[in-house]
Amino acid sequence: MNISALLTSAGINSAVCLVFLSLYSILRKQPSNFSVYFGRNLAQVNPTRDHHVRYQRFVPSPSWIVKTWQTPEAEILVTAGVDAVVFLRIVVFSLRIFAVAAFVGIFLVLPVNYYGQEMHHKQFPRESLDVFSIGNVKEGSQWFWAHCIALYITSLTACFLLYFEYKSIAGMRLKHIRTSSPNPGHFSVLVRAIPWKPDESYSNTVKKFFTKYLGSSYLDHQMVYRLGTTQKLMAETEKVCKMLRFDNVDHGKNMVQCALPAGPSGTSKILSREPESIKGKPPFHDVGTASNVKEDAAAFVFFKTRYAADVAAKVLLSTNPMSWVTSNAPEPHDVYWRNLSIPYRLLWLRKIASLVAAIVFVFLFLIPVTFVQGLTQLDHLHHTFPFLRGLFKKKYMSQLITGYLPSVILLLFLYTVPPTMMLLAVIEGCISRTGRKKSACRKVLYFLIWNVFFVNVLSGSVISQIDTLSSLKEMPTQLARAIPSQATFFMTYILTSGWASLSSELMQPMLLIWNVFRRGILRRKDDLCAASFPYHAEVPKLLLFGFIGFTFSVLAPLILPLLLVYFFLGYLVYRNQILNVYTTKYESGGQLWPTVHNTTVFSLVFTQIISLYVFGLKKSKTAGAFMIPLIIFTLLFNEYCRKRFHPIFKSTPAELLIEMDLEDEQSGKIEEFHQNLEMAYCQFTLKSQDPVKSAHLSPPVPSEYLEDPSPALAQQNPTKN
Amino acid sequence: MNISALLTSAGINSAVCLVFLSLYSILRKQPSNFSVYFGRNLAQVNPTRDHHVRYQRFVPSPSWIVKTWQTPEAEILVTAGVDAVVFLRIVVFSLRIFAVAAFVGIFLVLPVNYYGQEMHHKQFPRESLDVFSIGNVKEGSQWFWAHCIALYITSLTACFLLYFEYKSIAGMRLKHIRTSSPNPGHFSVLVRAIPWKPDESYSNTVKKFFTKYLGSSYLDHQMVYRLGTTQKLMAETEKVCKMLRFDNVDHGKNMVQCALPAGPSGTSKILSREPESIKGKPPFHDVGTASNVKEDAAAFVFFKTRYAADVAAKVLLSTNPMSWVTSNAPEPHDVYWRNLSIPYRLLWLRKIASLVAAIVFVFLFLIPVTFVQGLTQLDHLHHTFPFLRGLFKKKYMSQLITGYLPSVILLLFLYTVPPTMMLLAVIEGCISRTGRKKSACRKVLYFLIWNVFFVNVLSGSVISQIDTLSSLKEMPTQLARAIPSQATFFMTYILTSGWASLSSELMQPMLLIWNVFRRGILRRKDDLCAASFPYHAEVPKLLLFGFIGFTFSVLAPLILPLLLVYFFLGYLVYRNQILNVYTTKYESGGQLWPTVHNTTVFSLVFTQIISLYVFGLKKSKTAGAFMIPLIIFTLLFNEYCRKRFHPIFKSTPAELLIEMDLEDEQSGKIEEFHQNLEMAYCQFTLKSQDPVKSAHLSPPVPSEYLEDPSPALAQQNPTKN
Repeated sequence: MNISALLTSAGINSAVCLVFLSLYSILRKQPSNFSVYFGRNLAQVNPTRDHHVRYQRFVPSPSWIVKTWQTPEAEILVTAGVDAVVFLRIVVFSLRIFAVAAFVGIFLVLPVNYYGQEMHHKQFPRESLDVFSIGNVKEGSQWFWAHCIALYITSLTACFLLYFEYKSIAGMRLKHIRTSSPNPGHFSVLVRAIPWKPDESYSNTVKKFFTKYLGSSYLDHQMVYRLGTTQKLMAETEKVCKMLRFDNVDHGKNMVQCALPAGPSGTSKILSREPESIKGKPPFHDVGTASNVKEDAAAFVFFKTRYAADVAAKVLLSTNPMSWVTSNAPEPHDVYWRNLSIPYRLLWLRKIASLVAAIVFVFLFLIPVTFVQGLTQLDHLHHTFPFLRGLFKKKYMSQLITGYLPSVILLLFLYTVPPTMMLLAVIEGCISRTGRKKSACRKVLYFLIWNVFFVNVLSGSVISQIDTLSSLKEMPTQLARAIPSQATFFMTYILTSGWASLSSELMQPMLLIWNVFRRGILRRKDDLCAASFPYHAEVPKLLLFGFIGFTFSVLAPLILPLLLVYFFLGYLVYRNQILNVYTTKYESGGQLWPTVHNTTVFSLVFTQIISLYVFGLKKSKTAGAFMIPLIIFTLLFNEYCRKRFHPIFKSTPAELLIEMDLEDEQSGKIEEFHQNLEMAYCQFTLKSQDPVKSAHLSPPVPSEYLEDPSPALAQQNPTKN
Repeated sequence: MNISALLTSAGINSAVCLVFLSLYSILRKQPSNFSVYFGRNLAQVNPTRDHHVRYQRFVPSPSWIVKTWQTPEAEILVTAGVDAVVFLRIVVFSLRIFAVAAFVGIFLVLPVNYYGQEMHHKQFPRESLDVFSIGNVKEGSQWFWAHCIALYITSLTACFLLYFEYKSIAGMRLKHIRTSSPNPGHFSVLVRAIPWKPDESYSNTVKKFFTKYLGSSYLDHQMVYRLGTTQKLMAETEKVCKMLRFDNVDHGKNMVQCALPAGPSGTSKILSREPESIKGKPPFHDVGTASNVKEDAAAFVFFKTRYAADVAAKVLLSTNPMSWVTSNAPEPHDVYWRNLSIPYRLLWLRKIASLVAAIVFVFLFLIPVTFVQGLTQLDHLHHTFPFLRGLFKKKYMSQLITGYLPSVILLLFLYTVPPTMMLLAVIEGCISRTGRKKSACRKVLYFLIWNVFFVNVLSGSVISQIDTLSSLKEMPTQLARAIPSQATFFMTYILTSGWASLSSELMQPMLLIWNVFRRGILRRKDDLCAASFPYHAEVPKLLLFGFIGFTFSVLAPLILPLLLVYFFLGYLVYRNQILNVYTTKYESGGQLWPTVHNTTVFSLVFTQIISLYVFGLKKSKTAGAFMIPLIIFTLLFNEYCRKRFHPIFKSTPAELLIEMDLEDEQSGKIEEFHQNLEMAYCQFTLKSQDPVKSAHLSPPVPSEYLEDPSPALAQQNPTKN
């Protein structure tokens, strides 16, 4: 591939991007698309829509860019929460570090590469891209110190930026916890594996246990019910409730939605008029079908103070570690109810099974990846499919196939990954939606780094030599040889997968088509349900591009300007999407960042090791030796950050919790909050809206864009905790 | 090596053993050796010694064996504590599992190996040992199912036994905690990295912090002082105390030994007559030199209940995870004071440094090991040292060199390992003596398994092919090829290192010589100080033999009878030593067992994987395939045990602590205990005994046998907590 082919590819992609952006600026002005492009506004307020037909509506305008650009971070923090800000910080961090890397790369490394050996340079557009990579520098050259310095500058700047980002995000997390209004999640503990006693209901067992051991701080509890049998009850419940005209009784917003909270207080009393008396059954037995309802061996236990709840979640309660297992309860909207019913004793098996499934999935994916890589190597294709030879003779076809098609095919295959990993995270048994996304995020990340990067590098450079992996000693040398030659592929990958996917993210074509279909054919006037941000799909993408960027920063710095454009576009697009499209139903409080930090450090160390081997291959041992202190420094830096910041993301400091408890106590509002606490977790909601509408909860949009809504969450207004 | 050579070796070793045992039975009857062989009795009571010269004193008798054999486990538990019983359980477990393995091996596997291929068998004594290994079975034989079944029986029995041992030991640990008298360690928390405030002493900072945040359960605290400056003060202190006739005031046993406890109460008041008033200095300023004494950023904080202390040790206290770092306090006798002064921020660096040092040590050790292995291969020696050829011509010399010498040399080198690892554990910064031993134990274990097993197998089979390690894929095949051929070396290793080291453990030759020297030349009449059991040296030894036993159980079952003898002898010797020689100064409550369990499972899985590859090499794919479910089962079994039992060894269940707290509250004795609590941790002791005697604390016995006594522990009577 030469400069002109790269420019062709960049040109096509820029044009596509521009068309998409213009189209977006028009489409967003159409009132019918309001629910596609302004999901957040729709969810938060009932906005007035502009139904007048004005000519401006059909003229592309950059106003949204200006608005997105000008919104301050503080506003995003208030509107979209810590997670959204942390996500944008990934983009900002990448922009900063790659701006530095690009500067160093283009003004220091690129000239050294280009004039690396005495050769006759062609006309610039016909110059092969390999001339700009480290491969062009002759062996044993003294100029490798330029690469070495560049790597030092990039690595040290990255560590510096990472440290301050980690510090700032940790501070943001603490501030978020400190300033949030009383959150039911902080006062609650999820207890699983409650031991079964033949003469007692689970509910009674829980009550007795916590009254005996943590009586001074125990407040109340709420059982989790088995879903299968109770879902059938929903219709019945609704009838009964309507009969009781329960809908009209104003017991606070939550009570209308809660149908089956257990414990002696709350709506259950109103429904049952009898406290829990029948073994293993909730106080619901006077409703005809209620005999089917069974308690699960799990419960939410509420405590008087945050500190008491946090402590109960941390300590080993029982002498049998397989019973009375506690963990911090997720926020009410964050609970993934379906998984609470999984018996705790099966959880470890499920974790192992989902891990094995993920590994199998990763290796099955080798098939399309290997196929795609075949496309970049025309010679191989000529051999395999001789009948295609005529096609390849046309130059633009050949350029299109080598420069564009492989990435597009790979991209399409990659669309299946986030939903699959999300499914595996569900199978794993995550109890919260944020936990599920975090688990899926990590799985997708490993998947991408392995399948997009390593497999492409190894299979692309020496097709059918995957068994070189088996040689541990040869591996880094093999990689050092293969990576610089694969720069071309990753440049086109950034152009297609990066730029194009951002435009598609902005346009939301699937959702748009579905919206048109609903309005045009189904004749539905109501709005689409807004989804929450697909962190598990977008974070790994950003991190993968970061990984590619670091790896090639010194070896083939021509990739960096493309990356900068990607991150800049990403900054605009993601800001816009977070501000307008996605809602914030739940919040992990920035728990993404440790993963981001670790991945970035991994990228840095990987880059340094590969550079060490590349210098070795190029017979510049001094430059190689200079890498070793840098590697040690980076690893020590990571270890320090892990000690210094990571514990804050694993658990909330007691200092903070106790201060909040003291304030609450002084304010006197805590009593009221305690009363509401018992109704905060609603496993079942009454379907007060019409059934036709509820049926539209699962439109055929990719499931990574739309949450799988549990009954409790489906029709609720998203409230920020 | 053939059967007769093995028998020669076994004969020599049995004779040596018998001589040692007889010698021991005589030596132990001599009153002058009382302090060598009855350290525990000496430490616990002041026994009446039999000074009459009777003829029985010079006749060997097996009475000690009978006595050792008959002592019930319950008595050992009471006398020597949980750790000692857990240690003996390792021996019992090994005896049981290798009895099963030996039965299966000898009656099922050995005949199959012996008649594995059609060959002319020599006279039995001249039969090569290789005929009894799996190497003798011809390729593709149907008889491999015998090995397969044997491995299934051994593995399943091992899992079965492991499960019940883990369960029983976990129960023992819980019972030990439950029934122990109030232990200061349970009520205390060690706080490190106390933030420095310019206008306040550390002591005040601690007091304010805990009063503010955990005021309801906070009782008092005691600062840790810098050792360097204070040690100089000891002489001064003593003078002052004598002046005050403090020695004669009966303030309880502990108070006599405590010179510098901080906090407003306790002896410090008596000494200083003024509560803490000077910044950064303990309440000791009226003693002339006390201005040198400085507080460290570490303190013991005492709580009213066990549960409160446990909670304070578990939670993340501060918003800065690098300050106010808490951990469960060790028992008073278990504290390793010297390491408490290490600044917390350096701890992670020290851990990394000691890890690196351990790895370097492991690899430096390759030099003697490679040399030793050369000795087993006479052909190589003939090449390297032609002048030795004459020596080797004598048959007994050749047998001695191949069968005996390598193991002896290796054994001597190995004696340096436990003290080195102990030193590294100190550098690592362990705060308790049990923690230090646990850390050293793990390091010695990795060391032994790597350096005794793997290096011997790989370097012994193909000298100078250590770089085969670099090939990941080839590794198991390489091992599968090498291990069966190395059975001979490990048989002699068991004979020398195993049998002989047990006799030496029983005899305590170093201590005996030192005792004779002291009494004969130094003319000292007082007794030697009894050491505590060197778990860090003995546990890895047992586990290494277990590892060897499992690995060869199917490949070369002739090794098993030798192992059985070793474990049986070990059972007698260790029981005797625990009952008579070593004292129990501190107790980890069986925290050894998880290491033992994990190592045993590792041994099992390793054996299964190696067998899989051996079956593969022998072209018996069916037998190989049958290994896979066994491997999966073993791994799942381990994961289950980790879930089920391991948490009990990491932390004490809250249920238990709260029950104990309630009982204490009801008994009313807790007030008194709280008062004593403040004096439980004594960093400095008054040297009330004569200085000549104290100088004898470090006799030239190997340091792994004798604890490095801190001033606080040196002359104390061991009291069991």
